[in-house]
Amino acid sequence: SLENSLSVAVSSLRGMKGDHDVRRVVHSVKVGVALVLVSLFYLLDPLYERVGENAMWAIMTVVVIFEFFAGATLSKGLNRGLGTILGGGLGCIAAVLAQEIGGVGNAIVIGTAVFIFGAAATYARSVPSIKKKYDYGAMIFILTFNLVVVSGLRAGEVMGIARQRLLTIVMGFVICIFTNLLVLPNWASDDLHISTASKFEHLACSIEGLLDKYFEAVADKENEADRSFKICKSVLHSKAKDETLANFAKWEPWHGKFGLCYPWDKYLQIGEVLRELAATIVSLEVCIRSPRQPTANLRQLIKEPCETAAASLTWTLRELGESLLKMRRCQPEALLLPQLKSARHELRHLVSPSELGHVCNLGEDLAVSTFVF
Amino acid sequence: SLENSLSVAVSSLRGMKGDHDVRRVVHSVKVGVALVLVSLFYLLDPLYERVGENAMWAIMTVVVIFEFFAGATLSKGLNRGLGTILGGGLGCIAAVLAQEIGGVGNAIVIGTAVFIFGAAATYARSVPSIKKKYDYGAMIFILTFNLVVVSGLRAGEVMGIARQRLLTIVMGFVICIFTNLLVLPNWASDDLHISTASKFEHLACSIEGLLDKYFEAVADKENEADRSFKICKSVLHSKAKDETLANFAKWEPWHGKFGLCYPWDKYLQIGEVLRELAATIVSLEVCIRSPRQPTANLRQLIKEPCETAAASLTWTLRELGESLLKMRRCQPEALLLPQLKSARHELRHLVSPSELGHVCNLGEDLAVSTFVF
Repeated sequence: SLENSLSVAVSSLRGMKGDHDVRRVVHSVKVGVALVLVSLFYLLDPLYERVGENAMWAIMTVVVIFEFFAGATLSKGLNRGLGTILGGGLGCIAAVLAQEIGGVGNAIVIGTAVFIFGAAATYARSVPSIKKKYDYGAMIFILTFNLVVVSGLRAGEVMGIARQRLLTIVMGFVICIFTNLLVLPNWASDDLHISTASKFEHLACSIEGLLDKYFEAVADKENEADRSFKICKSVLHSKAKDETLANFAKWEPWHGKFGLCYPWDKYLQIGEVLRELAATIVSLEVCIRSPRQPTANLRQLIKEPCETAAASLTWTLRELGESLLKMRRCQPEALLLPQLKSARHELRHLVSPSELGHVCNLGEDLAVSTFVF
Repeated sequence: SLENSLSVAVSSLRGMKGDHDVRRVVHSVKVGVALVLVSLFYLLDPLYERVGENAMWAIMTVVVIFEFFAGATLSKGLNRGLGTILGGGLGCIAAVLAQEIGGVGNAIVIGTAVFIFGAAATYARSVPSIKKKYDYGAMIFILTFNLVVVSGLRAGEVMGIARQRLLTIVMGFVICIFTNLLVLPNWASDDLHISTASKFEHLACSIEGLLDKYFEAVADKENEADRSFKICKSVLHSKAKDETLANFAKWEPWHGKFGLCYPWDKYLQIGEVLRELAATIVSLEVCIRSPRQPTANLRQLIKEPCETAAASLTWTLRELGESLLKMRRCQPEALLLPQLKSARHELRHLVSPSELGHVCNLGEDLAVSTFVF
């Protein structure tokens, strides 16, 4: 049943990759629908009479904040709203102050305000912790502040403009939320959950591929092993993608099996441990490519214990991956650890070939990953 | 002299990190200046009479395309220009066609055009190769197309609007180029060049830290070793950052010591090999943490050859890093390889402790990295 459910997970993952194109097409259609909806502000006379040229801002909002993942759309939309309100409010104040002064002083005050707020907000954007979550909001703040403060100089009635624009931006946001979240949403949280669980399976596969290659159980499966090496490297380089997904997942509301304060940071920690394991596998792979290898006899001698150890390793990995995927407590460590320990013990009796040191080390690393749970 | 110039490189790198804050402040001031310059369209009457409300587009352009790196600004600016021209052109054609039909058919044609072009361009954005270079351009294409086609319905004179907006966008772009590229520019190419060269130094340092830790030459330098481990991991996870920098570097014009068709992809290849080496060092680090270790006697026995091997390794790494930094051909392989080979040969005589297998393997890996040159 373990293998069964895992093969289901893997095939669902492959399906995801195959379906990836379908998801992209669905996303494109959703964008098209949202654009047509927002264009209605221009196309329908009663609506146009209400908002006028400001309908432009609704279109801009839809184009800019409609992202693939629900969390990304929410994060951009809220950032845009916040930036607009803050920038618009401060812009109004600055414009009114400048008008009080009047004359040439007016233009000087405005220029100074533009410089100070622009530079300060740009500096804030470059601070990593702000950049991560509020980069887009800061940009919109600069934009709105500037537009409001300089056009206030000409248009006279600043407050009216600001309110109208904010209203149309909110309407664009509402259209985005409806089309993006309510119809076939792409949750970043689902993607992170499945991709983390599948990393266990990927690593198990590459350990198997490595052993097959080393003991040449399969003669000309060179490509197969190269493929597993590639997968292992993709796990190794998954840090940036994981962090982006976790960042989006935190914005996503309660849905499906995930609660409100779901510990997404734990996923990043698990990913980190798995990347350490992947690093070990990659360096093992490089070892195997080395021209200096033990003799065939020696290799036969170590074959069996190595395979036993690898089998218990991959079994453990798959068990952990499956328990993560299904969100159930994994088998008590009492069941998993002795198996790994006995495998390590067996390996310890064979000393010489350097390869063994590595495999042994894998056991160590896994113990670490087990403790994460 | 080798050590001298390397220490200069390292200190310049540290300086860069210390100066990082200075660079950010300079960048913020530059943004402020650009914003004030572009606000002059509103503030000065003669300019405002020329462009009118369209000055808004110049402000928007400056806010949106002014990025930290020169290459990023150029790439965004050119994308914005291209997207605006394409979207505006197609939007004009669609608007004129729709006007020919007239009546209710008008709105239907426009709605259909909005849907088809919006969905198609969004799909194009999700294709990796397009996403990498033209993501922003495609977004601007959708935006401009929509705005032109729907406001053409109302404004009558579409061509005029499109030309005016394009003009103001070009003016915003010119202001950006002047303030970003001509005054203290931040070249992504310089950053990529220095960070790649410093990776060699980082890895050499972490190999030294590792040996110190293993043979406990330094008793309580636990923190020092942890620091070197962290640096090593940052090398391991540098893929995404390197690719971004290389992408920007390709947009940057000829400057300083880099020619027009400088092979930036080679930097990515070197980075890949160095990441493999970093993976080996990380897994070595995990090995050392394992509770199962050889006895102190055995450790003393292997200490000397290990240190010799490590010394020649780090020397080679630094030599390669320095030759990359100074862009000179590195010492002929004839000089480097025999040293590594003899070190490996010496290690081969000591068989048992698994650690040695690793260090030996490092030699292998370096041989690979040497062949890159």
